[in-house]
Amino acid sequence: MDTTSVAQTEKITYLENGSITSVQGFEASGIHCGLKRKRKDLALVYSKLPLTYAGTFTTNKAKAAPVIINQDILRKGKKVRALIINSAYANACTGIDGHLDAVEIQNKTATALKVAPTEVLVSSTGVIGERIPVKKITSSLNTLIEKLNPNGGLDAAQAIMTTDLIKKHFALEVQLSKGKVTIGGIAKGSGMIHPNMATMLSFVTTDAKINNTVLQKALTESVNDSFNKISVDGETSTNDMVLVLANGASDIVIEENSNDYNLFTKALKSINIKMAKSIVADGEGATKLITINITNAPSEKDANLIAEALATSPLVKTAMNGNDPNWGRIISAASSSGADISPNKVALYFGNLQILKPGYITDFNEQDAVNILKEKEISITLDLSSGTANTTWWTCDYSEQYIKINSQYRT
Amino acid sequence: MDTTSVAQTEKITYLENGSITSVQGFEASGIHCGLKRKRKDLALVYSKLPLTYAGTFTTNKAKAAPVIINQDILRKGKKVRALIINSAYANACTGIDGHLDAVEIQNKTATALKVAPTEVLVSSTGVIGERIPVKKITSSLNTLIEKLNPNGGLDAAQAIMTTDLIKKHFALEVQLSKGKVTIGGIAKGSGMIHPNMATMLSFVTTDAKINNTVLQKALTESVNDSFNKISVDGETSTNDMVLVLANGASDIVIEENSNDYNLFTKALKSINIKMAKSIVADGEGATKLITINITNAPSEKDANLIAEALATSPLVKTAMNGNDPNWGRIISAASSSGADISPNKVALYFGNLQILKPGYITDFNEQDAVNILKEKEISITLDLSSGTANTTWWTCDYSEQYIKINSQYRT
Repeated sequence: MDTTSVAQTEKITYLENGSITSVQGFEASGIHCGLKRKRKDLALVYSKLPLTYAGTFTTNKAKAAPVIINQDILRKGKKVRALIINSAYANACTGIDGHLDAVEIQNKTATALKVAPTEVLVSSTGVIGERIPVKKITSSLNTLIEKLNPNGGLDAAQAIMTTDLIKKHFALEVQLSKGKVTIGGIAKGSGMIHPNMATMLSFVTTDAKINNTVLQKALTESVNDSFNKISVDGETSTNDMVLVLANGASDIVIEENSNDYNLFTKALKSINIKMAKSIVADGEGATKLITINITNAPSEKDANLIAEALATSPLVKTAMNGNDPNWGRIISAASSSGADISPNKVALYFGNLQILKPGYITDFNEQDAVNILKEKEISITLDLSSGTANTTWWTCDYSEQYIKINSQYRT
Repeated sequence: MDTTSVAQTEKITYLENGSITSVQGFEASGIHCGLKRKRKDLALVYSKLPLTYAGTFTTNKAKAAPVIINQDILRKGKKVRALIINSAYANACTGIDGHLDAVEIQNKTATALKVAPTEVLVSSTGVIGERIPVKKITSSLNTLIEKLNPNGGLDAAQAIMTTDLIKKHFALEVQLSKGKVTIGGIAKGSGMIHPNMATMLSFVTTDAKINNTVLQKALTESVNDSFNKISVDGETSTNDMVLVLANGASDIVIEENSNDYNLFTKALKSINIKMAKSIVADGEGATKLITINITNAPSEKDANLIAEALATSPLVKTAMNGNDPNWGRIISAASSSGADISPNKVALYFGNLQILKPGYITDFNEQDAVNILKEKEISITLDLSSGTANTTWWTCDYSEQYIKINSQYRT
């Protein structure tokens, strides 16, 4: 039940050390401009060719200024050329002043790049409610632009990190009917991660020739099975977004409802799942990646309710942290999810080891179960025996380190 | 905005060291029968007079055997005489065998007390999915009954504890039109605490003369503003219940829709709030009790959605643990709750200190805020400026200790 393997047919090939700049025509840079003490904190993505653009955004009602600005650009359907991202400050809950800060960053970046302001997308991540020291960004724009280069994707991936420990970057090639298309991506996020764009940024580039509408459709489809199925802590943030930028450099056109559209969307889903899983595996304080499969549910809605309940249950996530095969917590969380479930019909597996048979029969070997839970990647499969709907989610365990990171985030 | 103080008019007087046996005619005992290694693990509550009875139960679909048995007794509307409670084993997810275990405990207790089986309520709390060693209970029944006494409430309060650190017991007298009525209660719970009866047991006794229907109405009303407004970890357990037992010994009759009914319900709500708050204050790993007031919301539903979001937000709860006035997390959690909220209209207070004025204006002194958060009891008030609905919830902070307790629960 690993969705990735479904997407990874022979038509999709991942590239070593891939990123957004693995796609022809894209340049990127990442520098330290002084928002953080030492680490890189400012990134730029640039394309000489005009870009079609699609995005999905946080559902949080306190939307950060960059979210509002990008949604506005998206609504107008115009092409874009660049994307500037800062870490350390979220520019959320900063009111009119914060909005003007974002506009100033957008304007000055546009001037420096000699493009129109509406051709520059903006993005921020970090502490909520504090004004960005804008001058640190604007006075670094020349350096940032000078450093643009066709191998800059990894610098950009590094500059957008906050509490992330690992840079997240991928690229793949997908064979379509008339040739290859490349898709690259970078992502960040490790806390405030939950479906519908929690504090999670993901930027994807491609050389496919695809219009805004079709690109948006492909993105939405792919996000539903990737970024919308991960949870680190159940929090949905003010800032988060997935953006896809397409420069058409491959000259391979992707039309709606074509076979190539399906392949392209599958490839997009594949890279988005890679990024989503890498975010969860690097979840704050996480010691393991947990794949949650819900099978034979009465409906997809029920399957997702249960998967979400397990992915957000502190008792399940602490048991996983302690390598404790405490299956009762899993059944309890699933049964209080609001989903249609008959607890006594459920079968439960850790990896391939059956923990629970219908009727609450448990004859597994405790030590075998503990050994499975000690792995860095584990899967929990709950077979509801009540229908045909399936879903897969990803989460991580809850460790003491999660608390430590988040009780002392600003100190 | 402390709801307790509203209920504590001059008509309600709390008794020192009160419990279920502060009410005339009730006896209780609590002993060690061997379910736990050393501590008390079995409790009995008994009344010579027949008892009217009301209850609210977990909404979890994996209901423990005792929940099903008590709901069945409640449905029949017959009077009861006793209540037996064990800790260490939840008797949930134990199938038919577990159900028969509970019935055996009920039957043998009835025989030993010389009452009918349907006059004995049963309750369990502890690990899910493991069978109760029934013989340890049944072979201790004689001792348990011998130890019944009119001051046994505190022993019972101790015997029902699991990860609780503090015994929870209260009693009050309320002055009605024709005399005083006493209400006593014991409770347990510190993890798996969330609205609609999470792993939380609460048993209330009273000498009021009140029929099942009126008692159930009063209980439901009081629970909505007490046990249904607390959260330790967002988990709703398989076992939980609030039971009220009334022996009529005061001869003071409480009729529906009377002034005395209102006073009695107010008193019941008051003791239930005391118990609910004591559960949260003793939440697993908790270092402080947090009162969450949502004021001037568009509707009660919106107010409760926001309060629940704050009470369950790991980022808010870890910030409180770290004495970090990170108000952005509060606004972010409130704004992603699904409630109708205009984040830029919100005012936020810690205690009496205003942290945020509408329009994201923050001119508070950081150290003043930190000092308030260092207290053992803190209040967060979010004024939405969007209506007239209010609510109050209670929660605790998330500490590293919470993770430690729950990752190593069974080891």
